[in-house]
Amino acid sequence: MKKFIVGVIGAGESAKPKDSENAKSLGRLIAEKGWTVLSGGRNAGVMQNANAGAKQVEGSCTIGILPSSGDEVSPDVDIVIQTEMGDARNAVIALSSDILVACGEGGTGTVSEIALALKSRRTVILLCPAPEAEAFFKKLGGARIRTALSPEQAVDLIHQFKNCK
Amino acid sequence: MKKFIVGVIGAGESAKPKDSENAKSLGRLIAEKGWTVLSGGRNAGVMQNANAGAKQVEGSCTIGILPSSGDEVSPDVDIVIQTEMGDARNAVIALSSDILVACGEGGTGTVSEIALALKSRRTVILLCPAPEAEAFFKKLGGARIRTALSPEQAVDLIHQFKNCK
Amino acid sequence: MKKFIVGVIGAGESAKPKDSENAKSLGRLIAEKGWTVLSGGRNAGVMQNANAGAKQVEGSCTIGILPSSGDEVSPDVDIVIQTEMGDARNAVIALSSDILVACGEGGTGTVSEIALALKSRRTVILLCPAPEAEAFFKKLGGARIRTALSPEQAVDLIHQFKNCK
Amino acid sequence: MKKFIVGVIGAGESAKPKDSENAKSLGRLIAEKGWTVLSGGRNAGVMQNANAGAKQVEGSCTIGILPSSGDEVSPDVDIVIQTEMGDARNAVIALSSDILVACGEGGTGTVSEIALALKSRRTVILLCPAPEAEAFFKKLGGARIRTALSPEQAVDLIHQFKNCK
Repeated sequence: MKKFIVGVIGAGESAKPKDSENAKSLGRLIAEKGWTVLSGGRNAGVMQNANAGAKQVEGSCTIGILPSSGDEVSPDVDIVIQTEMGDARNAVIALSSDILVACGEGGTGTVSEIALALKSRRTVILLCPAPEAEAFFKKLGGARIRTALSPEQAVDLIHQFKNCK
Repeated sequence: MKKFIVGVIGAGESAKPKDSENAKSLGRLIAEKGWTVLSGGRNAGVMQNANAGAKQVEGSCTIGILPSSGDEVSPDVDIVIQTEMGDARNAVIALSSDILVACGEGGTGTVSEIALALKSRRTVILLCPAPEAEAFFKKLGGARIRTALSPEQAVDLIHQFKNCK
Repeated sequence: MKKFIVGVIGAGESAKPKDSENAKSLGRLIAEKGWTVLSGGRNAGVMQNANAGAKQVEGSCTIGILPSSGDEVSPDVDIVIQTEMGDARNAVIALSSDILVACGEGGTGTVSEIALALKSRRTVILLCPAPEAEAFFKKLGGARIRTALSPEQAVDLIHQFKNCK
Repeated sequence: MKKFIVGVIGAGESAKPKDSENAKSLGRLIAEKGWTVLSGGRNAGVMQNANAGAKQVEGSCTIGILPSSGDEVSPDVDIVIQTEMGDARNAVIALSSDILVACGEGGTGTVSEIALALKSRRTVILLCPAPEAEAFFKKLGGARIRTALSPEQAVDLIHQFKNCK
């Protein structure tokens, strides 16, 4: 009964065009598999695009874990979880995801989410990471860190992960 | 696009049979309206019954905001939000609900949720409250506290609230 | 080595003059015993006065658990714990106190703190409570709820509690 | 009146002997300056040693922000802030520190704390970091990341930071 939840994390306002594009494709592909997209829920960058991509698919479900009621919510979020707890909500994003995908080069928020996800024994797929970030996180997370070079490859990795559980 | 979320709160293991029955009917009635049931997500009492009632309705959606990964999750929760933050998650339950219904006499957890909901300017419907609880909360919350004597009446009040927004 | 911490809770901006006076006396009496005052830390009402009272005593220590960096901090707080998590910080106030005193009639925030404190098996002393609040909380908390009619009596109760542990 | 708080973070059970030694010296040096040591409060590794070092100094003050009541508290913590919110407490550690020092190679928890500290615009001093961690965090945090090769140098950097504020 419980839905399989894929956390999609990455930069907000400072997201690069390629990362936003990847997030949109990724959101659509996740939704096509019948999985649920969970993000930080704000109307910016990777979050917004992952939700927009998922909502291209009929019957899809998107969850946003918001840091503060002052933030603009992505219009493509179905279920708004309001925490009013700032960056501490990053722990909730990590814990509520069965697996996470980090789209491109995120900033400090994304790094905290990857670290918290690893601490909670989640697998994190880095989609098109910067080389030094990939090296750093592989050393930190070992086999829990996987790398994908395209949204399609990320979804393949999620599929493998799901079958092995 | 954003779903309308009704928080259903009340006792867990110590719920009275009548409160659990009411929670089950309430969950079903909420789902029949197309609204989403949000609860504390544990496999006990009011939470469990509200979710079980909602899942009698095809296409329904149930959200559980869990306090800890050590807790057994209600099998009728579709979307598990894991917080690992104990009672601080009660604030998330209050903030993520558009309106809340407290089923019967809850304990300290339910009282904290009602108080936090009022603090965040949410309306709380007390379903079959104990008289002294009703008096106490009406004094505390004024017009934000409403009373219902049946699940049907609670859903009518939610309907009115939704139309006035 | 660990300091004995007394949580002092109550209304902020809407505190009545008598409750603020009581909070000031209470803060001073707690500090004279060598105990530590913990509060919500904002520069208003019961919080501010409890801290001001404590700082009349040389060598005293005051802790403030702040909800948000946007809030003005009481100038008499020695140790500022910044949570940026809004009302979820009320759980931290309850959990970090060995015992709590609620000064007068608080609002929704105070009620949530009393309920969360009881849930975490803390004793809560109601100092000059409203009659219906006293009745409500005694029913909710049983022997964990005590009543005091003056700051001196509250400190006597804390003393007894401390000796029994 | 408000105390100047230095957050000391790093590995717990898996701390290397050199990192624990550095943490002990650092705790002592911070306390000698009259500053307050804040840590994760558990009885392990960098946390424990920073507190033990600080308590060698008369009149020192140590704060521990605990993740869970199930954790053993460092016996050298004066003020125990109990959060019961797991890794979300890492955000409180970051926010409550005026500046932070990361002792040696921490794990996922330490990385999340550094990232959350940078996000909240705190300066973080890396004490004897691994080269790839230093490179990674300098790219992430720019001028907010400083490096020290000894506890003495870390305290000098804190001193400079404090004078510039």
